[in-house]
Order: sequence, then structure tokens, then C-alpha cells
Amino acid sequence: MGTIDIMKTDTVMLDDANDAVVIIDQTKLPGTVDLLELKTAQQMWDAIYLLQVRGAPAIGVAAAMSIYVLAKGMPRDSFDSFYKEFTEKKQYLDSARPTAVNLSWALKRMDLCVQAHREEPVDEIIEALHREAVAIRNEDVEVCKKIGEYGVSLIKPGDGVLTHCNAGKLATVQFGTATAPIYVAEEKGYHLRVFCDETRPLLQGARLTAFELQESGVDTTLICDNMSAMVMKNGWVNAVFVGCDRVAANGDTANKIGTSVVAAVAKQYGVPVYICAPTSTIDMNTPTGDDIVIEQRKPEEVAEMWYKERMAPKNVKIFNPAFDVTDHSLIAGIVTEYGVATAPYTESLKEIFDKKNKVIN
Amino acid sequence: MGTIDIMKTDTVMLDDANDAVVIIDQTKLPGTVDLLELKTAQQMWDAIYLLQVRGAPAIGVAAAMSIYVLAKGMPRDSFDSFYKEFTEKKQYLDSARPTAVNLSWALKRMDLCVQAHREEPVDEIIEALHREAVAIRNEDVEVCKKIGEYGVSLIKPGDGVLTHCNAGKLATVQFGTATAPIYVAEEKGYHLRVFCDETRPLLQGARLTAFELQESGVDTTLICDNMSAMVMKNGWVNAVFVGCDRVAANGDTANKIGTSVVAAVAKQYGVPVYICAPTSTIDMNTPTGDDIVIEQRKPEEVAEMWYKERMAPKNVKIFNPAFDVTDHSLIAGIVTEYGVATAPYTESLKEIFDKKNKVIN
Repeated sequence: MGTIDIMKTDTVMLDDANDAVVIIDQTKLPGTVDLLELKTAQQMWDAIYLLQVRGAPAIGVAAAMSIYVLAKGMPRDSFDSFYKEFTEKKQYLDSARPTAVNLSWALKRMDLCVQAHREEPVDEIIEALHREAVAIRNEDVEVCKKIGEYGVSLIKPGDGVLTHCNAGKLATVQFGTATAPIYVAEEKGYHLRVFCDETRPLLQGARLTAFELQESGVDTTLICDNMSAMVMKNGWVNAVFVGCDRVAANGDTANKIGTSVVAAVAKQYGVPVYICAPTSTIDMNTPTGDDIVIEQRKPEEVAEMWYKERMAPKNVKIFNPAFDVTDHSLIAGIVTEYGVATAPYTESLKEIFDKKNKVIN
Repeated sequence: MGTIDIMKTDTVMLDDANDAVVIIDQTKLPGTVDLLELKTAQQMWDAIYLLQVRGAPAIGVAAAMSIYVLAKGMPRDSFDSFYKEFTEKKQYLDSARPTAVNLSWALKRMDLCVQAHREEPVDEIIEALHREAVAIRNEDVEVCKKIGEYGVSLIKPGDGVLTHCNAGKLATVQFGTATAPIYVAEEKGYHLRVFCDETRPLLQGARLTAFELQESGVDTTLICDNMSAMVMKNGWVNAVFVGCDRVAANGDTANKIGTSVVAAVAKQYGVPVYICAPTSTIDMNTPTGDDIVIEQRKPEEVAEMWYKERMAPKNVKIFNPAFDVTDHSLIAGIVTEYGVATAPYTESLKEIFDKKNKVIN
């Protein structure tokens, strides 16, 4: 498809005229930048399952757009025949990654939209679905933009920033969460210096974050995960920005494995750690990090994936948790689309939600 | 060469009858266990240069044995013709890895041995070189054994231990430095549980340490470098044992990149960090860690080595220091062959050398 500027291309796009969802294929990055057209339910399911589209917010948007595109081809003679097929396809897409919260959340929201318009002709239901998918997409863009604006207030021109994994543009439609303050700073001419942890075992930092930051013109340096202490000791890092998968009510934060290593190192060298968290990832029903179940992944990711040959002895035990929990005591602030929460988090996160409810209601 | 039990095979061996040095080829581990016969100066140089033999102590022993084997084939008609060729070959071997202290140290010791016997017939000089090479080898074995005995006093049965990189059997003739306490504990029936950091970018932990520990029957779990906080938070680690490349007079320690990350994480979770250091690596002429120059290595090690394809964007900046310095304040003890030094290190390390000098003189 020619040369694609990933920074000017949404991670997930609706091509309404062609009845397609178009995504940047993340499995081929950074070697090849390819757009992928998803037209059938099978293609959409595969794209999520195979991580061609990844990052909780991006998956949610892709699912909403997908079910809308599929709805356009469903029977329009009666609500019942439409809704029967809608439900089947919704459940099918939902099964692609059962643990991704945003996937089921976005599909549920599309379902509620259908139900709210059930008395109207199917044509109008489909119109409503279009508006809802676009709304989900626009909200994602808006939330990231706000996180960028609040986040940039925490840094100053010339600062060094360290990030871990990819909570970037490629995990959302635009801007990212942890990268949003970096992109806003870049627009303001801050000339940050950004260090990307490569993020073993799946290398999202090397493959995705270093790539999108470099493409956007940010001064980017890739490091192995075990080099964070040296760059901090050298005084090169003024702030750490990371994303999150779930924030508990007390501020404990589950994020990609290694985040709590970065946080402990940052404490040693007096560097503040900021969690960039859309309010959708803050779970006030989870009291503390101890209540968050950590997914264990297969050992081959550590010993074999990416490599020319196996890089560990046969049958050796391998511990491969996908996430870890960073204690709230190591977190200097949680940056949401409604402002920056600081300790004590049990109070400040409540205030964030009070603010959100006021804006919405 | 059939099945080789690496735990019962010295990392470096002298095969006097065949005029050869025999090594375990470390570039093929853990996939293939192969012995390599080194008979010519070129083969010996290549083995060191290509990291077929690695680890400062093992390199020193290999160099001493190599120059002895070569000496056996040198002219015996006059000291001058013998010493001319000896010096040429010594300088050639010394050029294989200019930064490895033990390489030049061992070759210098062999040279001093020749000079001490220069009035004797060349046959007897060669006999003296044989004794010196064997002495260097035996001293390495003895030093590691002592470190193991002192180190085991710091742990108890059932403990969990974490180690980083390979300061193992494969970096020495036998036992290793950081692994020596583990092997001694295993002999005593301690049933430790050992976690190996894979140690990016060169993966010595995955390829070498996990391999030798598993071969020796130790309960071994491989983790990525960014998982140390999670295993420590889970309460699975009672002590960290690592090797070192250079210890300054104040206890600051240069070791494989990532050691200071482990140390910061260990501090956060209250786990003691022990440096296993033969006195030959303690440099009382280096006042602090700030005086230690850190080798920078090529970016391809991070982005390309081992991989099927490049795993980072083209031309991205990569910071790839080979070592980092762990501040003495993060170190609970330095385990030498003359005992365990504890803070304040400026005093305790002096005492270690006083003890050493008393034993030698």
C-alpha cells in the first residue's frame, strides 16, 4: 500500500464506503508497515486473536467498528432476524480474546445501542450503530488527548522520560496513554529525550514504542529492561510514564511485567513514576493490588519466540507472568482524562470519579 | 564426542599427552555440548576472541595452559631463541581480548615464571611452565571452593536465591563464584530454589546459568530480567548472589549490566545482595565506582543478535553498556576466598587483604 506514515494514520479506521475496518498490522512492525482490510467476521476475529490489533483501547474501537460493518450486511426485514444475527456475530467477536475488558465492554455498548433503538426500522438502528462506533472511537481520541495535556504539566522542556512496554499510539487510535504527554510535549517544542525499555519477552517497547516515537521525530533511545538503573543513575530520566491494565481503588496498579522493577529503580534514584490511566481502567471495586489476578503465559515466549533457535535449556522451568502490580507507594501520580490523582489514592481516585460523573450527568 | 556431563567436566582442561587445551565450547550452549581441542596458537586465540571460552577466571586459566602447550613446541637449543618465540606467542594470545584483566595477568605470570628459570635448560623452563599453569588452574578451583564455603553461611535450607548473568561454573574451571554457594548448599542437601535472570542482551543467564544449574540438579527457574520484583514480592527470594568484574576500594561493584537493577529491587523488598568476588577482582587502587570505566558495546547485540529478524526500528539509537556499577550501600556483603566483607567496606576490604598477605607470606 505504499509508504504509510503511522503517526498520521489511525491505528484503527472505519472505511464505511468499502464496508471495512482498516488497521495497522502490528504483527509486522517494525520491519513492515502494512494496512490490513477487515471485511468478514472471520478476518475481524483473527485480527484480534492474532494481535494484529492490540492494546485494550484499540481492540475496543476495532470491535465496535467491526460489529457495525457486519450489521450493515444483516437482514433488514425484521428486528428479530437482524438481532439474531447481530447477537451471533457479537458473541463470535467477543470470543477472540476473552480477557480483554475493552472488547466485551465495546460490544456490550453496541448491543445496548441496538436495544435502545429496537422500536425503530433496522436502517435506523444501523445508523445508530454507526454513530455509536464513531463515538467510541472519538472518546478514545479525546481521553488520550486529555491525558496528554494533564501529563505534560508534570514535565518540563529538555526532560528525559522513560517508558515501559507500549501504551502508545499503537495501543489506541491516536496519541496513546503513556505516550500522550510525550507527543503533547513534542508539539510544544519540549525536545524530550525518551528511553524505551525493550520489554521482554514480547518486545513491545523495541518493536512498537521505539518505532512510533522514532517515526514521530521524538529523540528515542532503546534500552534493555535491565539498563534502567544506569540511565537513571546517570541523571538522564526526570519522569517515568507508563500505562496500566487495571488500577485498584488504593492506587495499586497492574501493568506489563517489569513495571514494578522500573518503579523500584525509580524510587532508588528519586525519579517520579506516573501511571497514565483512562478512568475506564480504574476499578473501584478492586480494593488493592492483591485482589488482581495475574495472567501466566506460556514459557515458549521467553525461551523460543523471536529466536533463531531455543535460547534456554530444554525443560527448564520458566516463570512468565504477563503483568505485575506496582504498589501505590511507588507511584507519584495517576494521570486520568479528568486530572492527576495523587496520594492518598483512596480519596483522590474517588474525586476523579466524582468529577467524571458531574461532567457526564 | 558423545554425551558430556558438563558438571563433571572442567570448563578448561590441559591434555598434556596430546599437546592440547580442551574447552567446553560455550558458543553452542545450551543446544549442543561440545568439547573443543585447541592445538595451534590461532585456535587458542580464536577460542578467546569468539567467546568459546569466557568468564575472566576461565580465560586466565585457558591462556596459561595455552602458552605452556605452545612452549612445548618451541626451540630448545638456546634460551634466547626460546624466549623470542615465547614472547611473540604471549603477545599474540594477549591480543585476543585486550580488556580481560585475567588474560594478561595469567600470561604475565607465565612470563615471570620463564624469567625466574632463565638460567636453567629450556626443558626445565617448560617443566616450570607446566607447574605454573597447573597452579593457576588449581588456585582458581580453590578460590571458588572457598567462596562457596563462606557464601553458604549466608543462606539456609529451603531458601530461594536469585542470580544474574553467569558467574557460574562455566566462567571458571569448576564451581563458579556466584554459583559456588549454591553448589555447596546443594551438596549439603539445602534444596534451594534458584531464579536465573536471563540477562539481556547476551542471555548468559538463560543460555549458561540456567543450563549448568539444571544439569547439576538444582531446582532452577528462568525469568526475564524484568520479573525480579515479582518473584521478590512473592517472597520467593531470600538472597541474591552475583559475581563481579571489578570491586572498588569502597565496595562499589561493577558487574554485568542489570546488577544494579536487581540491587534496587532487592532493597525495595528487603532481600540481601551478596557479591562473590575473588580477591583478584578487588581493586584497592580504584577508590569508588565512579572511577570505573564502563564498556559500551554495539547496538546490534540488542536489536539483532539471536533473532530471526531485526527487532527494533532501523537506525534507532540504542544504549548498550556491558556493565553497571552497584553502589556499596545496596550490598549486604562481599564474599571472598578469605571471608565475607561487610560495611564499612573501606575497612573490611583492607582486612581481607591483610589476611591474604598473612597467608601468602
